[in-house]
Amino acid sequence: MRGWDGGRVGLWLIGARGSVATTAITGLLALQAGLVEPLGCVTERPALAGLPLPGWDELVVGGHDSVITPLDKRAEQLAEAGIIPPPVLAAVADELRRLDGQLRQLDLASGGPQRRYADQLIAELAGFAERHRLARVVVVNLASTEPPVRPLPEHAELALLERALDDPRRAVLPASSLAAYAALRAGCPFVDFTPSAGIGLPALDELAWQAGLPYAGRDGKTGETLLRTVLAPMFTDRALRVRAWAGTNLLGGGDGATLQDERNASSKLESKARGLASLLGEPVSAPLHIDNVPCLGEQKTAWDHIAFDGFLGARMTLQFTWTGLDSALAAPLVLDLARLLAAAHAAGRSGAQPALAFFFKDPLTGTEPVEHRFAEQARRLETWAAGLAGAGRWGSGRWGPCR
Amino acid sequence: MRGWDGGRVGLWLIGARGSVATTAITGLLALQAGLVEPLGCVTERPALAGLPLPGWDELVVGGHDSVITPLDKRAEQLAEAGIIPPPVLAAVADELRRLDGQLRQLDLASGGPQRRYADQLIAELAGFAERHRLARVVVVNLASTEPPVRPLPEHAELALLERALDDPRRAVLPASSLAAYAALRAGCPFVDFTPSAGIGLPALDELAWQAGLPYAGRDGKTGETLLRTVLAPMFTDRALRVRAWAGTNLLGGGDGATLQDERNASSKLESKARGLASLLGEPVSAPLHIDNVPCLGEQKTAWDHIAFDGFLGARMTLQFTWTGLDSALAAPLVLDLARLLAAAHAAGRSGAQPALAFFFKDPLTGTEPVEHRFAEQARRLETWAAGLAGAGRWGSGRWGPCR
Amino acid sequence: MRGWDGGRVGLWLIGARGSVATTAITGLLALQAGLVEPLGCVTERPALAGLPLPGWDELVVGGHDSVITPLDKRAEQLAEAGIIPPPVLAAVADELRRLDGQLRQLDLASGGPQRRYADQLIAELAGFAERHRLARVVVVNLASTEPPVRPLPEHAELALLERALDDPRRAVLPASSLAAYAALRAGCPFVDFTPSAGIGLPALDELAWQAGLPYAGRDGKTGETLLRTVLAPMFTDRALRVRAWAGTNLLGGGDGATLQDERNASSKLESKARGLASLLGEPVSAPLHIDNVPCLGEQKTAWDHIAFDGFLGARMTLQFTWTGLDSALAAPLVLDLARLLAAAHAAGRSGAQPALAFFFKDPLTGTEPVEHRFAEQARRLETWAAGLAGAGRWGSGRWGPCR
Amino acid sequence: MRGWDGGRVGLWLIGARGSVATTAITGLLALQAGLVEPLGCVTERPALAGLPLPGWDELVVGGHDSVITPLDKRAEQLAEAGIIPPPVLAAVADELRRLDGQLRQLDLASGGPQRRYADQLIAELAGFAERHRLARVVVVNLASTEPPVRPLPEHAELALLERALDDPRRAVLPASSLAAYAALRAGCPFVDFTPSAGIGLPALDELAWQAGLPYAGRDGKTGETLLRTVLAPMFTDRALRVRAWAGTNLLGGGDGATLQDERNASSKLESKARGLASLLGEPVSAPLHIDNVPCLGEQKTAWDHIAFDGFLGARMTLQFTWTGLDSALAAPLVLDLARLLAAAHAAGRSGAQPALAFFFKDPLTGTEPVEHRFAEQARRLETWAAGLAGAGRWGSGRWGPCR
Repeated sequence: MRGWDGGRVGLWLIGARGSVATTAITGLLALQAGLVEPLGCVTERPALAGLPLPGWDELVVGGHDSVITPLDKRAEQLAEAGIIPPPVLAAVADELRRLDGQLRQLDLASGGPQRRYADQLIAELAGFAERHRLARVVVVNLASTEPPVRPLPEHAELALLERALDDPRRAVLPASSLAAYAALRAGCPFVDFTPSAGIGLPALDELAWQAGLPYAGRDGKTGETLLRTVLAPMFTDRALRVRAWAGTNLLGGGDGATLQDERNASSKLESKARGLASLLGEPVSAPLHIDNVPCLGEQKTAWDHIAFDGFLGARMTLQFTWTGLDSALAAPLVLDLARLLAAAHAAGRSGAQPALAFFFKDPLTGTEPVEHRFAEQARRLETWAAGLAGAGRWGSGRWGPCR
Repeated sequence: MRGWDGGRVGLWLIGARGSVATTAITGLLALQAGLVEPLGCVTERPALAGLPLPGWDELVVGGHDSVITPLDKRAEQLAEAGIIPPPVLAAVADELRRLDGQLRQLDLASGGPQRRYADQLIAELAGFAERHRLARVVVVNLASTEPPVRPLPEHAELALLERALDDPRRAVLPASSLAAYAALRAGCPFVDFTPSAGIGLPALDELAWQAGLPYAGRDGKTGETLLRTVLAPMFTDRALRVRAWAGTNLLGGGDGATLQDERNASSKLESKARGLASLLGEPVSAPLHIDNVPCLGEQKTAWDHIAFDGFLGARMTLQFTWTGLDSALAAPLVLDLARLLAAAHAAGRSGAQPALAFFFKDPLTGTEPVEHRFAEQARRLETWAAGLAGAGRWGSGRWGPCR
Repeated sequence: MRGWDGGRVGLWLIGARGSVATTAITGLLALQAGLVEPLGCVTERPALAGLPLPGWDELVVGGHDSVITPLDKRAEQLAEAGIIPPPVLAAVADELRRLDGQLRQLDLASGGPQRRYADQLIAELAGFAERHRLARVVVVNLASTEPPVRPLPEHAELALLERALDDPRRAVLPASSLAAYAALRAGCPFVDFTPSAGIGLPALDELAWQAGLPYAGRDGKTGETLLRTVLAPMFTDRALRVRAWAGTNLLGGGDGATLQDERNASSKLESKARGLASLLGEPVSAPLHIDNVPCLGEQKTAWDHIAFDGFLGARMTLQFTWTGLDSALAAPLVLDLARLLAAAHAAGRSGAQPALAFFFKDPLTGTEPVEHRFAEQARRLETWAAGLAGAGRWGSGRWGPCR
Repeated sequence: MRGWDGGRVGLWLIGARGSVATTAITGLLALQAGLVEPLGCVTERPALAGLPLPGWDELVVGGHDSVITPLDKRAEQLAEAGIIPPPVLAAVADELRRLDGQLRQLDLASGGPQRRYADQLIAELAGFAERHRLARVVVVNLASTEPPVRPLPEHAELALLERALDDPRRAVLPASSLAAYAALRAGCPFVDFTPSAGIGLPALDELAWQAGLPYAGRDGKTGETLLRTVLAPMFTDRALRVRAWAGTNLLGGGDGATLQDERNASSKLESKARGLASLLGEPVSAPLHIDNVPCLGEQKTAWDHIAFDGFLGARMTLQFTWTGLDSALAAPLVLDLARLLAAAHAAGRSGAQPALAFFFKDPLTGTEPVEHRFAEQARRLETWAAGLAGAGRWGSGRWGPCR
């Protein structure tokens, strides 16, 4: 990996005390201490080796959450669940306690006045950058999934949005989008790791371009959908017709509980269905379930049954069973995305980064058509990284509040 | 699809009365009669639409076998096994009987004198081409898998090989390679659809280049290995470490019986293991079994268990169960390969065609490194087809015995 | 098998043109013609050999349905779906056509006047018995699943029920229960093969005892639930604690379409959940889905995921995938039940037959506690059959309308 | 549970430092300390509640092994493998160290002089009983699986065996049988938890009867075979014909390594195949593999594919995937067997105890026919326990060397 000269990078986590965030923070500390191999970290693959990226030591963690269970307690639960090895926990527990003391307790979900909430987060981000002398801060949304949002005219146009935010009686943005707004106003690249609306509103895309900030999203691709985007192209490339693709997801943990609320699950299910139809080129019978099974804890089991037809109409099936630890799959991608968006920012890129579709279930691609095929996403990521590496403008995009 | 002006194309099947061949022939007749959709036929995908290829009507079937069960009887068995729809069988049964009457009974496996056997096949191919006024003939090996072959100096150098073939007391080539030799000498492009040695000897590569003939192989990729080449890149692209990849294959039919002979199975197992290690970049614990379970008939069930590690060493698994009808998966690829090699021949290409790795477990790629990743193979196939379409030399490579 | 001297037995099927009924009728014809082995027929097992039962030749089929697709057309569809072998269909097609001509078109679901509907069915049953000189007629409900029924006082007491039936403006019974009422009034033993209310109302139990008629039900156990009642006792017998038992059922066919209506599916889901909790001795997290996937046709695939704890809290899992043809699993049980209830009737038994729980998801057991454990059900069936065989009263219970 | 008045019971483990033994010892200590629930302990089920059994506090552990890795180290490995909870390990580590100091290092496998080896073990057992004032000692064989044994005349007759043991140049018994011999001579009931020859020789059965000692075996039933004995009766009870039953077992740990040696695996495979054919009443195509996959550690994954035919020949399948922790499944059964054999001994029972078939893959049943059906085994165990409870002779069988 070529040397990084883009300065220290802040990683501000929204939902900083959740499973994914705690795993990402613990893992980062372990990587900084050389305790573990960077398994699951895409940015450590040889294919991305030419790209100048901030080293693990150049990442500084901050963030906020509405819950107060401390990081080290959360990490203990994750150790019991088999996600964090006890020796790693023991080695970093003090540092987790120290970091927890620096996290902020904010809750942007409580309606208006939204301008004031935004200003509060902007101030936090500025303070964080200053305290740690950070060249840039990447904000990553890891908060619980929100229910789908009813479109408003204010979501489509920045000027209308600004006006609505000034009205203390209105609350036009869901919490995830308000956070994205604040991040952009604070001059921070933004990553949407959940299926919530977040930065995926035209008004926020407008702001990102205006502020010269890159962003990426939406909904980290870590399990069943990852496999679907890997397997579906096999069927189309081999001219096999998929007739049905049924799926069942069993999961416990906080995620399971959130998705048990049907309104929240519907965001997730919609995002999954969109991708499948797009991959196969035609709609298929695709019943899909997400079941909350608390006793499964952090473990997620997905079963998919695929019925397909071949030559002379021959009927065949493929079934897979995926037993994954969601937080362990998601956490390294959070670190990857922080590094990659930092690099994109340093290289002066703006707006949605379609080449990062590799990481997401429901990629935000701006005006480009959405690519769901995993292998093609991997190829584009590599091409993008190569382009970034040779950009020549490297280091030009320095951090600073854009207001 | 652009019009094809390369003349009528012969498709000579070695093992013409086996399951795959019978399915391919029946399917071709059904396609010619417009009875079925071209499911499973890669050459009918939009991505290959720009390529001028012989139409279904321009393909003429011939072939030989050592067994004598007639095509229509074999097709009845395949209908009972769920591979050929009864209405299709009824519609093409007369034509199957007619075609069966034209098949030859040859057995090249019976030792020397090999020159005489070769000459016999060459004469058959020439007669076939003449009778049907064919512009070219593609020979496809679908005979039963042979045991692995002990290397001889004659396999490495054409001159030595020719001398040995002249010696009636020696039998230096396995039947599959003798057939490949004869095909090339007869001026025919050659496809190795089995794991047998076939055309994969340096002396035969030398001959192919000398004769200006393209060839492709080896071992049609239709089930477990197809999935492995689709799934393995997901793990490497996501920096996940595969620790074990165990597989069990249950199959009946003729293939099951052949592979029950351990010497024959070892060809298959070796070819599968090579691919997996190459895909993952490191050797893994990968026990693999092929079990003959006669009552399963044409249906093949493969179960794979993949244990992998992610972030912080988290242990996870993926299992898949594939229930396929091997002949239905293989047959359309045979037709695809006949069309594609005919096009390559017409465009003047020679030697191994690495871009056809898409179709094979153990790709023959000449001096190019072997690509096992399925999605990358698909991309290369499309690029190759585009190159062929725009070659300008189209139609220049006309058929004629090269001797 | 000891000789049966109980006379010819009628088998009246409600829903006589559905998948299960058509398969049962076709299979009975094939058994009578000696075309097939009695696979799936429990009454042909050696363990029940001592029991005098009507032979296949002594069974005579009749029935009614609200649909009009003829039996032979339905059988053709089932042949295409892989349930009826084409040679069997060819051999019995004429007889199917003849039988179809004798089926009645009745629809008891259309509200009141219910007394008139009941009388109509009673007359049909009497006519059927007379025409064919039957010693007794067993009525089996195979009609589509109904939504759950709101309890009424009339369901609990026969006198109240009779009065309500006399009121042409009221419709107090669901169609399935009205049919059971009519069957009992016509002197016929009754089998409830669906989860509908059917004979499971106290007022009808009262009537059965009064009329001296045996009955059995409810909801034929053919797939996922069969496996659950086989597997759950293993966990309890080994003192392993099941924490979660999740299930997904994918099915097409008419059954899939009926169950897509959530109100109908809820009958089925409730009946399944009751059994599982009872088997495990404590409630577990048990999400369960039934998905209609039309392209799967008659094939039903069930996937269950069981998470359980063992010594020192060790966490383990069992998963199974069942790919069954529901009609092929249900049809022989319908024939078995007809034979067994005929024998029970001949032996003078009355009321619910708990020993037939073996056949049902939601056994009707009268005042006896419900036994769900499959192996124990099998044992009780054998004991019951032995008791019946040695009853001494054999043949005493002769048929005759009880009114 | 009725009070036990049979005195303190010794549990002598052969292979006392292996995974199963270490788990059993750790678990016993945890049960004695009230740290865990008795999950997986069959003797704690309500169905066996009437039986007077030694309490956990009345069990005293001893044993020998040829390896020297101390118990507490082994337990640490098992904690890392997820079998022993870290808090349990912490609580009992001191006691494990103390117990380890009392284990003996013996190796009976090193050929002759076998009499001397036997005498050594007899002396150890007597010393153990005396030191701890034990009323009786149950010896359980948990040593590694031995290769199959060639039958000798000395195995069939006690007198011949005794003479051969006196000859220091001969070694007629495998280590497992020599241990069984010594145990019986020392007056100890014996349990064969492995597939080795052990006590399953006629000469040793003769000795057991002569010494008035009960014994049980062979090969603890904990995973794939457990499921097979649960599922196979479903097929026969429902008159479904199993055509093929294929199995693959993936396991690491010491067991995996031992079974990698094909001679040892063959004992296991033979014992499994015998049971399956017996359960189904006819031989089926049943390929079976045991693969050593070291990285899987203590976790064992078994996949079975069952193809079966139903009514009208309908073809269906059942597949299961079992992910178990073998030591966690086996260990509580070891404790159960110690308690049950102690009770049988106290009640004066002699010879093979067929009612304990419940615990074994390859039950030793003396002159009784072997019962493999799990549910029936469970029933017989309960009946046997009830008989033992009411035996009246309770407490009569007191311990004492029988020589």
